[in-house]
Amino acid sequence: MVRKSMVLRRRPSGMPGPDDFALIEQDMPEPGPGEVLTRTIWLSIDPYMRGRLYDRASYAPAVKIGEVMTGESVGEVVASAAPGFAPGDIVVGSRGWQTHSLSPAAALTHVDRNGPPLSTWLGVLGMPGVTAHSGLKDIGQVKAGETLVVSAASGPVGSVAGQIAKRAGARVVGIAGGPEKCLWVQETLGFDDCVDHRGLDLAAGLQAACPKGIDVYFENVGGAVQAAAFSLLNPFARVVMCGMVAQYNDANPPPGPNLAFVIGKRVRIEGMIVIDKPERFPEWRALAAPWVKEGSLKYRECAVDGLERAPDALAMVLRGENFGKMLVRVGADPA
Amino acid sequence: MVRKSMVLRRRPSGMPGPDDFALIEQDMPEPGPGEVLTRTIWLSIDPYMRGRLYDRASYAPAVKIGEVMTGESVGEVVASAAPGFAPGDIVVGSRGWQTHSLSPAAALTHVDRNGPPLSTWLGVLGMPGVTAHSGLKDIGQVKAGETLVVSAASGPVGSVAGQIAKRAGARVVGIAGGPEKCLWVQETLGFDDCVDHRGLDLAAGLQAACPKGIDVYFENVGGAVQAAAFSLLNPFARVVMCGMVAQYNDANPPPGPNLAFVIGKRVRIEGMIVIDKPERFPEWRALAAPWVKEGSLKYRECAVDGLERAPDALAMVLRGENFGKMLVRVGADPA
Repeated sequence: MVRKSMVLRRRPSGMPGPDDFALIEQDMPEPGPGEVLTRTIWLSIDPYMRGRLYDRASYAPAVKIGEVMTGESVGEVVASAAPGFAPGDIVVGSRGWQTHSLSPAAALTHVDRNGPPLSTWLGVLGMPGVTAHSGLKDIGQVKAGETLVVSAASGPVGSVAGQIAKRAGARVVGIAGGPEKCLWVQETLGFDDCVDHRGLDLAAGLQAACPKGIDVYFENVGGAVQAAAFSLLNPFARVVMCGMVAQYNDANPPPGPNLAFVIGKRVRIEGMIVIDKPERFPEWRALAAPWVKEGSLKYRECAVDGLERAPDALAMVLRGENFGKMLVRVGADPA
Repeated sequence: MVRKSMVLRRRPSGMPGPDDFALIEQDMPEPGPGEVLTRTIWLSIDPYMRGRLYDRASYAPAVKIGEVMTGESVGEVVASAAPGFAPGDIVVGSRGWQTHSLSPAAALTHVDRNGPPLSTWLGVLGMPGVTAHSGLKDIGQVKAGETLVVSAASGPVGSVAGQIAKRAGARVVGIAGGPEKCLWVQETLGFDDCVDHRGLDLAAGLQAACPKGIDVYFENVGGAVQAAAFSLLNPFARVVMCGMVAQYNDANPPPGPNLAFVIGKRVRIEGMIVIDKPERFPEWRALAAPWVKEGSLKYRECAVDGLERAPDALAMVLRGENFGKMLVRVGADPA
């Protein structure tokens, strides 16, 4: 048995592609004391991964050339030398782009194999879902009667953020790319409106969808979408700065908005990284797992097959070509 | 006896000047029930006044053509038809650019005529001082060992913000225009350093003054000063957005910073207007009046004589030509 791992071959210039990575094979490792060997079932592909490919410090270190690409995944325990982990257990953790992973037990979280579908622990119940929950709880604080706008509304963060805001009694307007996504956001997620940022006049469309302005803007995109949303912010608006995927391939990002409006309108613009508040993970999972089971919290996934497709999947996310949470099917479901 | 009032004659294009205003004379009014007639001693000139000259809604309504220009002032009661106000009382309030003012009693606050110098109720103990206090208390939250940077450091807001931060145990770096102001900020106010934004390389100078980055940035200026400060912000930095005087005459302000750093560094950028938290006024005055009396809280004032000079004084503030709190001496001190 060999373990296959996707390592960084070179730093991409602009959009990453398959040639920037290499699939290597190694002998299967054995767990040392306190370690767990797992096989990967689902690998998560997320926009933040583009940031790891730059040779610069950020809130997390860059992936080095030759190193296994980082990523969250759901897997099954194959062998364990750690108490509390046995073959057949299902776990979620940051296990990288590989078919098998050797992890310290503390880096893994058990999930119920008879609960929600395993892939949901990477999306609606995973890091993206917790990001939406934390962004609204810690920064957005949307109230009934307010208007919340979320960009990348059909994505795994945006779709959850909007549904949380609907439950809170807010008017919720999504921004998404193309009529198919917008239709899904309105009809399936139940948002009050969804504006196509590829449409003729984003600013006018958003203004029409937000007749009372914007009280909370949940930012996942940046660029022209950000400019349109900022221009409609109400006094005392909150902006959850979660992502700016539109520019992740730009070595020299464009200028941003003039910030004088922040003063006159007393706007709060605040950045967030989900790992800063680890307590939000169990909190969200306890809250939302029943909603997923009963079907009241909607989600959508978009999967490709095979670890070798992971670089393509990342490019799809950065181009906005995925429709739903991007996943790579790396191994079979447990027996 | 006549009352002289400075009214808006036309909306200025760019820098306001004397021709944009007109000094009119009217018969002296008499107070009706609940009203107080005061004569103005000191009139305050502040950057925010430029915003009132545009024909657009902001957090406060625009001054209309023919209307008396708004402004805070200290005055003496001349006649009163309101309980609790008697001739000779000293009051502070928003009484406009005029020699005499008829105000509802509720709009006036008594000050101690035997306490700190009367002009200080417009500066270090007035709206600018309270702005510094509120900005740090509600947004900046500077802690011992952190680095705070404040722009317009020799002005009435910046000088107080820096001194509060020094009392909290922070490293405090000012940004000011010209060597004379920088020297005063360091030697008299006791800031750890002060960088001249008219110097050769603001970014390099600020970086040298902030070897551990910036934890709190108190923004009064905008433009290139803002860009230099933003580039040095630490993770979890707070930005108090108080003013952007560098662009108040620009009908079409320039673009601002790309905001991706806000996410990775989890920065909080928040705007403030001092009148949102009226409770900060008595709180600050109780705290700081003893410091002013004992001389431990430093301040500097810059006065011109005569109401007719008020438009010039406003232009001085917008050009950064004032050195200290800008005041107009409108009437004599009380007997």
